[in-house]
This record gives sequence, C-alpha cells and structure tokens, in this order.
Amino acid sequence: MLYLVGLGLADEADITVKGLEVVKRAERVYLEAYTSILHVGKERLESFYGRPVIVADREMVESSSDEILEGADKSDIAFLVVGDPFGATTHTDLVLRARELSIPTKSIPNASILNAIGETGLQLYNFGQTVSMVFFTETWKPASFYDRIRENVSIGLHTLVLLDIKVKEQSLENMARGRKIYEPPRYMTVAQCAQQMLEIEEEKQENVYSEDSLVIGCARIGADDQAFACGTLRELCDIDLGAPLHSLVLLGKRAHELERDYIKSFAVDATTFDNSWEKYHGKS
Amino acid sequence: MLYLVGLGLADEADITVKGLEVVKRAERVYLEAYTSILHVGKERLESFYGRPVIVADREMVESSSDEILEGADKSDIAFLVVGDPFGATTHTDLVLRARELSIPTKSIPNASILNAIGETGLQLYNFGQTVSMVFFTETWKPASFYDRIRENVSIGLHTLVLLDIKVKEQSLENMARGRKIYEPPRYMTVAQCAQQMLEIEEEKQENVYSEDSLVIGCARIGADDQAFACGTLRELCDIDLGAPLHSLVLLGKRAHELERDYIKSFAVDATTFDNSWEKYHGKS
Repeated sequence: MLYLVGLGLADEADITVKGLEVVKRAERVYLEAYTSILHVGKERLESFYGRPVIVADREMVESSSDEILEGADKSDIAFLVVGDPFGATTHTDLVLRARELSIPTKSIPNASILNAIGETGLQLYNFGQTVSMVFFTETWKPASFYDRIRENVSIGLHTLVLLDIKVKEQSLENMARGRKIYEPPRYMTVAQCAQQMLEIEEEKQENVYSEDSLVIGCARIGADDQAFACGTLRELCDIDLGAPLHSLVLLGKRAHELERDYIKSFAVDATTFDNSWEKYHGKS
Repeated sequence: MLYLVGLGLADEADITVKGLEVVKRAERVYLEAYTSILHVGKERLESFYGRPVIVADREMVESSSDEILEGADKSDIAFLVVGDPFGATTHTDLVLRARELSIPTKSIPNASILNAIGETGLQLYNFGQTVSMVFFTETWKPASFYDRIRENVSIGLHTLVLLDIKVKEQSLENMARGRKIYEPPRYMTVAQCAQQMLEIEEEKQENVYSEDSLVIGCARIGADDQAFACGTLRELCDIDLGAPLHSLVLLGKRAHELERDYIKSFAVDATTFDNSWEKYHGKS
C-alpha cells in the first residue's frame, strides 16, 4: 500500500495519530520537500518517528516514482506531504502510477492552508477559488492569477493566494550545462506577492483590484508564531512578516462586519483600513 | 487557555499528536456534537483519551458558554470540534466570549471536508464557494444556495454542498410547550439533497443546473468505507450511499480531463456520464 500522509502545517506533532502509526510501521518513509515545508527539519522528524526519512525532491518524484513505489505491492510505503495530501496537485502522478502498477493507495488527511486560513477570522464559505503566485523573472510574468481573481472579485469573494517556493532549483546556466548545482531555497514573501500583484494591475489596468484594496498577509499559519498583517496592497508591499511560509488573502467585497472586527486587529494602520473598508466593503 | 481542537473526519485516531496532548492535560474536555459527527461514539473517544468527555449540544454552547469557559483563565479547557475548528462558523461566538473574558484561545487545526473533498479526484483550486443545504419543510425552503451556485457556475467552478444534520432538535409542538423532548437525529442524504436541488430549479427555472447536470455524491469521506457515486442530479435522487455523513459536489464546466478520468470510476452509468460530460464539459 502507498500511504499519502498529511503532516499538517507547523511541526512534527501536527501529524495525526493514525498517520504516525502508518509512519512507524511503513517499510520506507519519504518526505515530499518541494511544494511546501514544515518549520522543523528532517532530523526532528526522524527523531520523533524513531526512524529514517528519505527526502524526495521534485526530480525523484517526477522521474523516479518507480523507485518510491518499489515493493509497495507487498509492504507499506509512506509518502509524507506537508499540509494535506490533496493540497498539492503534483502527487496525482504518483497515485496514477501506483494504480498502473496495481498498488493500492490511501490518504491520511490533515489540515491544509485552505482551511487553516480561517485563522485570519475570515469565513471559509466566503472564499472563491484559490490561486498561485510564482516568482516573476525579467521575461516571464505569468498573470493567469489575475483572471481568476477577477472572477472571485466579480462575485464578491475572498481570494487566497498561495506563494511560490523554490527548493533545489538550478540556475538556467547550470541547467544548460547539466551541472547539478542548486540555488539556495527561496520562499516568496507577502511583500513580493503584493508588488507582483500591483505590477500586473498597472500593466493591465482593468481595475480587478487597486493600490488601496485590502489584503491580509499571513505568515507561518498553524505555528505558535503565526503572524498576520492587514492593510492595503500598497502598504503590504513593504511589510516584513519574517520567516516563511507566507500567503495572502485579497478581501472580497462581500466581507461581513464580524470579519471586519476580527481582521482590523491586525491592521497596520487603522485609518487606511477604515478608508478602504468604507470604499470597497460598504457601510463601515 | 481555551483550545479548539480539530478531530478530523472519521474516528478517534484522526486527532493530531498535538491535539491529543492538549486533551490529555486539559482540565475539562468538551465535544461539540451538533454541527458534525465522527463515526465513533463518545465512549470510544473517552477510552482512547483515558478521560471523560462532556458532550456540548447547541443549547450549551449558545446559552451556557460561560460554563464551558469556567476556569479557563487559570487552566486549559479543550473544546473538540469534528473536522477543523474553522469549518463551522458557530464557534466564533465562543471565541469572542473568551476574548471578552480575557481568556486566550488557540486552535489545533485538522482536516476538514473542505480539503478532504479532494478524495473525489477533483482539484481543490477548481472549487468556488461552499454552500449549505438545510432540510426543507412544507413551508420553509430556503434557496439562497441557488444564487451562490449560480455564481460558481458562472465562472465554471465546482460547488461543494454541505448537508444539514439535525441533532437533539425539538418538534415545533414540543418547543412551543417547553417540553425538552428531542427528535431522533437526522442526517441529510445525497438523494435528499439532489431532490431539493431539483425542486428549487423547477420552481425558479433559471437553468443554474438541470436534471442531467453531473454531480458526485460522497459518503463518510475520510473513513475506510468512504463511498462516492457520480451521476446526473436525476440519477442521484435515488442513490443510497448508506450511513452519514454525506455531501455533494456539483461539477463546474471548467472540469479537466484528468478529473473526468478519476470521477468516471464512480459513475453510476457510464453512458449518461459520457452524455452529460459532452453536453456540459466540452470534448469528451
């Protein structure tokens, strides 16, 4: 059996009791380490589980899935995923490959950013589709998020924006030369995301959102030191919320007054908050 | 400290290691038992935790929150919530009351139906806002879900429909006479939900969806015996998916072919599935 085990969001103790049982009895334990990260390292997990953990990078999962699945028809393999196994789409391939090999699969669910974003005080049923923001380069600024946000905005819903992480990536030069030299990991910050959002709005000028749209910057949700900052997009271009992971919510116009009271406690500036709320979210 | 501890979806072992530690050391442990249910009873939880659990019904949480919060300024109180603490909105009042009393609060996240719905094979980023379906009566057929679904449909997104549960409810007569006699619990089935959806569409005739729209009926997601059935709304009016809890997904037109391949394995009739897919979701 191939078990996809959700690890939750923060540290080694966020695994479920059921998940921990699977890890303890599995033949081999892999940790998917390129779509998200915990706030603790592999060593901490190994000491908590009392057994070795194999870090699976993108290359391994995408090119050597048969190595991961080796023997899973006879014994149990645990594939650990930060958050919930369904949060990322990249594991579908591994599951489909397992099915081709007639290996049964099972998921052990856990918290994901999609529900933990409720820590902001925003109501989960007021969220539209989730979008992703990737690091822009000089020549590559994918803006499909802009159309998805427009759709959410058109029906008044909040948008959760998930931010890019780059782990074990090669520079173009090293890739071209076939050198397996990897860049240091990079995690997009709330400030970078806000800047890129404004860059695209300035380019398209379709008023999907604007400099004074209210957003909430989120850092390390689920951890003891989780942090939030609520302000305008322009204000959050300069915010520093510390260590990763970060995410961001663009407030929909259907926001409720109870939500306002909750998020105002994170406001970087109460006056600009009130102004933007009144402008976009009705009678403050 | 007031801890809101997510229990996950199926049984006693879906709690996180962190959550279990809180439960074991808390002064008192409450189980919220009216917005959702686990597939195991209170006794199973008590034996797993090694301590008593107080069942908190709606009346207690809404009218006697100070009783729950008693002493939480000095010691820890655990309030257990099926799924994730943020899944239901009804606990906001308890948290706000705690804040009024200067009692710190903390959530221990867990899986919720909002991410576990990924078990269907549908991509979570293709979902719009979540809606709720309540039991209709002769005189009360709230249809606000219809407008929310229309919004999701307009931008091609899937809609997760959460189904009503009635636990410890009084009949109107018993309520009027002040008799604390409670009706047996009721859990809405996929078939009842599909019937009510069609009833409203027939009444409104605005073509938000139709008899041959594709939906997925889901039962006991997260449990070993979870079950799915994919078919037209009309087909699912007669489906029996067994014990609760049930939920339903109305497929958005933006559904991807990979999603199709996955959900077709649950099809109640491959031919009607193909017909509806071709009609609403493009080149099959």
